[in-house]
Amino acid sequence: MVAERDIDDLPKNAANYTALTPLWFLERAAVVHPTRKSVVHGSLHYTWHQTYQRCRRLASALNNHSIGLGTTVSIIAPNIPALYEAHFGVPMAGAVLNTVNVRLNASTIAFLLDHSSSVVVMVDQEFFTLVEEALKIWAEKSKGHYKPPLLIVIGDESLDPNGLKYALGTGAVEYEKFLETGDPEYAWQPPADEWQSIALGYTSGTTASPKGVVLHHRGAYLMSLSGGLIWEMKEGAIYLWTLPMFHCNGWCYTWALAALCGTNICLRQVTAKAVYSAIHKYAVTHFCAAPVVLNTIVNAPPDETILPLPHVVHVMTAGAAPPPPVLFAMSQRGFKVTHTYGLSETYGPSTVCAWKPEWDSLPPVTQARLNARQGVRYIGLEGLDVLNPQTMEPVPADGKTVGEIMMRGNLVMKGYLKNPKVSVVARPDEKWGESPCAFVTLKPGVDKSDEMRVAEDIMKFCRAKMPAYWVPKSVLFGPLPKTATGKIQKHLLRAKAKELGPVKVMSKL
Amino acid sequence: MVAERDIDDLPKNAANYTALTPLWFLERAAVVHPTRKSVVHGSLHYTWHQTYQRCRRLASALNNHSIGLGTTVSIIAPNIPALYEAHFGVPMAGAVLNTVNVRLNASTIAFLLDHSSSVVVMVDQEFFTLVEEALKIWAEKSKGHYKPPLLIVIGDESLDPNGLKYALGTGAVEYEKFLETGDPEYAWQPPADEWQSIALGYTSGTTASPKGVVLHHRGAYLMSLSGGLIWEMKEGAIYLWTLPMFHCNGWCYTWALAALCGTNICLRQVTAKAVYSAIHKYAVTHFCAAPVVLNTIVNAPPDETILPLPHVVHVMTAGAAPPPPVLFAMSQRGFKVTHTYGLSETYGPSTVCAWKPEWDSLPPVTQARLNARQGVRYIGLEGLDVLNPQTMEPVPADGKTVGEIMMRGNLVMKGYLKNPKVSVVARPDEKWGESPCAFVTLKPGVDKSDEMRVAEDIMKFCRAKMPAYWVPKSVLFGPLPKTATGKIQKHLLRAKAKELGPVKVMSKL
Repeated sequence: MVAERDIDDLPKNAANYTALTPLWFLERAAVVHPTRKSVVHGSLHYTWHQTYQRCRRLASALNNHSIGLGTTVSIIAPNIPALYEAHFGVPMAGAVLNTVNVRLNASTIAFLLDHSSSVVVMVDQEFFTLVEEALKIWAEKSKGHYKPPLLIVIGDESLDPNGLKYALGTGAVEYEKFLETGDPEYAWQPPADEWQSIALGYTSGTTASPKGVVLHHRGAYLMSLSGGLIWEMKEGAIYLWTLPMFHCNGWCYTWALAALCGTNICLRQVTAKAVYSAIHKYAVTHFCAAPVVLNTIVNAPPDETILPLPHVVHVMTAGAAPPPPVLFAMSQRGFKVTHTYGLSETYGPSTVCAWKPEWDSLPPVTQARLNARQGVRYIGLEGLDVLNPQTMEPVPADGKTVGEIMMRGNLVMKGYLKNPKVSVVARPDEKWGESPCAFVTLKPGVDKSDEMRVAEDIMKFCRAKMPAYWVPKSVLFGPLPKTATGKIQKHLLRAKAKELGPVKVMSKL
Repeated sequence: MVAERDIDDLPKNAANYTALTPLWFLERAAVVHPTRKSVVHGSLHYTWHQTYQRCRRLASALNNHSIGLGTTVSIIAPNIPALYEAHFGVPMAGAVLNTVNVRLNASTIAFLLDHSSSVVVMVDQEFFTLVEEALKIWAEKSKGHYKPPLLIVIGDESLDPNGLKYALGTGAVEYEKFLETGDPEYAWQPPADEWQSIALGYTSGTTASPKGVVLHHRGAYLMSLSGGLIWEMKEGAIYLWTLPMFHCNGWCYTWALAALCGTNICLRQVTAKAVYSAIHKYAVTHFCAAPVVLNTIVNAPPDETILPLPHVVHVMTAGAAPPPPVLFAMSQRGFKVTHTYGLSETYGPSTVCAWKPEWDSLPPVTQARLNARQGVRYIGLEGLDVLNPQTMEPVPADGKTVGEIMMRGNLVMKGYLKNPKVSVVARPDEKWGESPCAFVTLKPGVDKSDEMRVAEDIMKFCRAKMPAYWVPKSVLFGPLPKTATGKIQKHLLRAKAKELGPVKVMSKL
């Protein structure tokens, strides 16, 4: 019966097998749409041909410094072209890209640079002194073992030129000068193995200290395609960078935009005005944002709001459960919100609240409530369950029973860097308060003297809408502690509630 | 420096790696949209939950007959639900699906069944006697070595019940009865290796005798995602099966429709009336068709044409270069045509004439001309070149120089079954006549006595539009010899021209 296996007796060869890597997307975009705009940042406009050349220059220049396979290049920058280019240029050199959250403090950055053994640090001029401080801490802590990384500073004409001058004075290399040392026709090679690492990102640590999430070329490729399909993105999409690219590589839309031959609109600072302006100026079709950003958009004052929108704008949100009123307000303004859920360990969002056509005819408030649910798995995530972590049995899908979300498949990270234990991917579903305590931030313009009335209203509203045991027994006012990516740090709230006790008790239950 | 390789020191495990296979799409569709219609065929309507159960039954029933890894299941059927189900049920059993062109003759089918070592033959009742004849030929040619395959007949209530009765009388098993022997909750396993073969399809042989193209799970998965993205298909697309599923697995849209949780509308026979009716009845959003089918659609008599369309209908065409006038007529009727090119060896179309936004404002005739070009590579096809086959150097992209199309990447087949020599994938770009001779088929209703006038008109038209050396020196009337998939068999035309000489010479040049 050996002959029957002829059907499988056809091995891989160079013509029919190559490692899956998102790097091909860039090469393809440069061939298919060489003159289309790839990256726009203020007055800077690049085409796909140019972006491909710049990325090859970066890869080549890194290789000239013996930076390649097995090394890590860190970058600390907001959403600027260099950060986009690093997503291709660094892995084209064979190296791994570590995108660092710009809102971290110097000592945390020092920890990350050390932990990731970074041999190059690229830094936007705005964050240069922060990184300078981090390098000092790293050197001090490492004592004799410290080997200074190659420091590349990225200038920006819209910022104070003295900042760049200062950086260059310390011996940092300017990014544009560094690119000039590279070959724009550099013959990069795809990874020999698609399991090779492409990116490293540290979790913001809602539950513990930062962990280095390692992603591979295969997963980045698959997530790029999945993310495009899930969101029904069209070829040539115009994507606004409100979500930081340093956050799970911009949920892989960095690479996906090249797959779609779309256009990246950069944004150094996210304000409602900047978002509305970009939508009108560049005909933005898509952006991603944490619910807190949606909140900013819908509550922007009239002089920062430009409505009506010129067309439906697609918004993907994730990171925390978006409140239905915010979803409702977004839809009233012409945004179509797709609600997803995920984590750094799954290349960003990997479950989606799949909109059902039968919802189209429901009242908008009901639609918003349904759209707040966390949904089903992406294509590419082959397993998703909510299990009891003791018994590993599925919990009833009754909207009440708490379980742990378990994910399995090709959109799951390689593991944590230098931390092989932690590798099973599971994350507790956060348990909402047993003795409820509401935390409230007043909108700008609401007087502090209104707190008592607001608290009364909240209690009244809750009593009308919720089972008794859900109604908060206390209301605390003040800013909500959040992680750099906008997730509310509930453990800090819990600590605060415990520590201070109820400030204004409304126990009329 | 060993420590620096920590970044790659994270091996695959069961949580983060699974073989890429389109089979997951079906499981996901059943979870995400269990009650959505999956497959519609006349009065038969299945949901994704039902389709998943039926496919698991098929896999289970096959396994019960010891049919699994390394075996081939052949199916001869038009676009009916069983053919769709076989695309999942057969590989779920671990076996390879061989979809056979229903327009082949008995002796060719006998050759394919023998060459593919088919252990099961599934056949639609309409084609039962054809297969019966093929099995007879196979048995005769194999002499003592013939081992009859398991014969499964698929009944259809819309056909003569005597046909099914006859088949059952010969000892064939009825498909629905066979499914009943399988477990609807069967715990299928993905392939251990994504390189495992999923499908086999014989090329129709425009240039030589049929060759068995072997495709793998990885490629089928990637092509499904690429095909969805390239065509901007939305989740829940309503897809009409005009293109035979037996032709390169319906260009992988069989599997892609499960990825999109869409709806498959089956069609036993493709007529203009059936296409227009289905568009209106089921709100069809997409269909694929060879240019000859587009021709039928645009030239249908008024009583078979239902216009205006209820919405834009997306049409993908490939197989032969579509004539610009047909593209123009399609766009005038509200169809949006995407022109692709490919071959069985690349899972179907793998290059696309990428529409450029700047074409939107051009006159429709110019748009049609531009859209007739063969385009750029799909995502997933990592290499595409037109080379001089002697020197292997790229030929100038001047629209004149002839070269060979060379393709490389993850959308290229494993190879040809039992024919390892052939494995480099290249196909000559067909050379259009050096001493031009036009072959013309008159539309139905045009009188034969009009041939002379038509020939005159063609010459006049060509002289006005083309360089002199392109204008045909002779015109031949008669049906065009085509392969079963609608490609014009130019080698037969060349032979005919040589043999008969010009019938009506119009040499006024």
